[in-house]
Amino acid sequence: MSNYIAIDIGGTQTRAALFATQSSTPILTQRISTQKESETPLDRLLGLIASIWEQSQPVLAIGVAAASPVDPYRGIVIDAPNIPGWVNLPLRQYIEDRFHVPVALGNDANLAALAEWKFGAGKGHRNMIYITVSTGIGGGVILDNQLLLGERGMAGELGHITVLPDGPLCGCGQRGHLEAVASGPSIARWVELELGQGIPSILKAGHSLTAKEVSSAASQGDALAKAAFQRAGTFIGRTFADYLHIFNPTAIIVGGGVSRSGPLIFDPIRAAMQSSVMSPQFLDNLTLTTAALGDEVGLMGALALAQNLIEK
Amino acid sequence: MSNYIAIDIGGTQTRAALFATQSSTPILTQRISTQKESETPLDRLLGLIASIWEQSQPVLAIGVAAASPVDPYRGIVIDAPNIPGWVNLPLRQYIEDRFHVPVALGNDANLAALAEWKFGAGKGHRNMIYITVSTGIGGGVILDNQLLLGERGMAGELGHITVLPDGPLCGCGQRGHLEAVASGPSIARWVELELGQGIPSILKAGHSLTAKEVSSAASQGDALAKAAFQRAGTFIGRTFADYLHIFNPTAIIVGGGVSRSGPLIFDPIRAAMQSSVMSPQFLDNLTLTTAALGDEVGLMGALALAQNLIEK
Repeated sequence: MSNYIAIDIGGTQTRAALFATQSSTPILTQRISTQKESETPLDRLLGLIASIWEQSQPVLAIGVAAASPVDPYRGIVIDAPNIPGWVNLPLRQYIEDRFHVPVALGNDANLAALAEWKFGAGKGHRNMIYITVSTGIGGGVILDNQLLLGERGMAGELGHITVLPDGPLCGCGQRGHLEAVASGPSIARWVELELGQGIPSILKAGHSLTAKEVSSAASQGDALAKAAFQRAGTFIGRTFADYLHIFNPTAIIVGGGVSRSGPLIFDPIRAAMQSSVMSPQFLDNLTLTTAALGDEVGLMGALALAQNLIEK
Repeated sequence: MSNYIAIDIGGTQTRAALFATQSSTPILTQRISTQKESETPLDRLLGLIASIWEQSQPVLAIGVAAASPVDPYRGIVIDAPNIPGWVNLPLRQYIEDRFHVPVALGNDANLAALAEWKFGAGKGHRNMIYITVSTGIGGGVILDNQLLLGERGMAGELGHITVLPDGPLCGCGQRGHLEAVASGPSIARWVELELGQGIPSILKAGHSLTAKEVSSAASQGDALAKAAFQRAGTFIGRTFADYLHIFNPTAIIVGGGVSRSGPLIFDPIRAAMQSSVMSPQFLDNLTLTTAALGDEVGLMGALALAQNLIEK
């Protein structure tokens, strides 16, 4: 029996899993912290692959997801925000030189889209959008059963679209992007600002909140907390209408921590999407749903990438 | 020698052209008004094709561009706004039944993108965006050398993205879309509103303006007219940054009447695009330019469609 190795490199943790061909259930998984003072992150990664490799040969291909802009065509990590020294790093080459099997590299949000399409909530959809609403907002797009990459693999930045001109500062340095008004931290920050204005709430002003605390206050009926999700969901839903006009998909899959707030976020998303669409035909046969794969989505995307190398 | 027939159906005029295979210069072109009381628009169209056909057999395929939402997969005109009775019209079938050659149908803005990519300003670009800024704002997207269609062929509505929440009413019935703030009529309407507020200008309040009149006032140095193009160009340029993040193309081609205002519109577009992009890598090797094909772009797109049927 032959196998694939899938790797998901985050800023904090790196996971690896071994999959038999024809299977999407891992034979084994391993997890290490991405960085440790005594080793370079690259040596740690190569060591992790070696330890998985030893446990079950032969391996046909390795797929790697990275929480970073990458050039998937050249197999390069462009600039990993949380891994010192990983700038224009030819990661694919390093891994191929060491293990002598084909390696493919992708951005984690793009690969999450691929994973949901191949194994999760997007199965069977030829045209599909995946968006993750978490600390940031990222995404990936499947068009005609292919992952949208663009010229250098930088496409699919679905959180970095201006939804509020001159709005709040975004993590990317621009203003008013969807991420800056509807990510978890943006929801929390809006509540902090309202509290600072004296708006009544069971949440307390003067300290830093999380979206989870806001969600919990909302489920206790707090009006300000509910308004925060209503506002974020409205921006997201309106943007989904934009994406229906741009891509004409049959599924929008929402992942990330904020998607776990259920109707609190999905009700306003659905309402704004439906009322903002230019023609009801864009809603025909449209599925709007939560992601199916949870925390494993990066690994599963890396698996899909490895499979693509061999099974085409 | 074999030929293709290309048809471009507008609300007012319908054009037809005959092209030899391997050539993109028409052998002959004809033009009729789309509607006439004594005939149905379909009979007029079939008659036009017959008159071109008679002048040079054999014809290998017919490509048709329509100024309407269409379903390119099923060859159906979904709802032609300016042609009475053309709702869910199986136009491809009607033409194939009559002429017994393969027929393909597409939306005119999508086909304009295809034409600019194959014959015009987008030649050689694997990933390209075309946008036409005119009475409305439409577009088309080439991804990996393929026209983006989406599930039912409705993708590429690049003018119907919300750029100003609760902004002016759009032709589609929604508010604050790019078309509602930056199309020709939207530019003129903004000037009318400012004039109504008493803002000084060489343009006169109290009657209906055109974008052309505003453009002409701007070229005479009128501050209000210049501000109108500055404003529209800023919205367009910011939206182009969004599209860079979404598609990561190497070319943005701008067609339509408003694009003929030169630096008046392109300077603010370029400035806003450059200052709104999340990373300068999206600007690497990026071409931003005017369309090359002028009024012939619909016919040329129909030709590209006919060629695709035979030459694949």
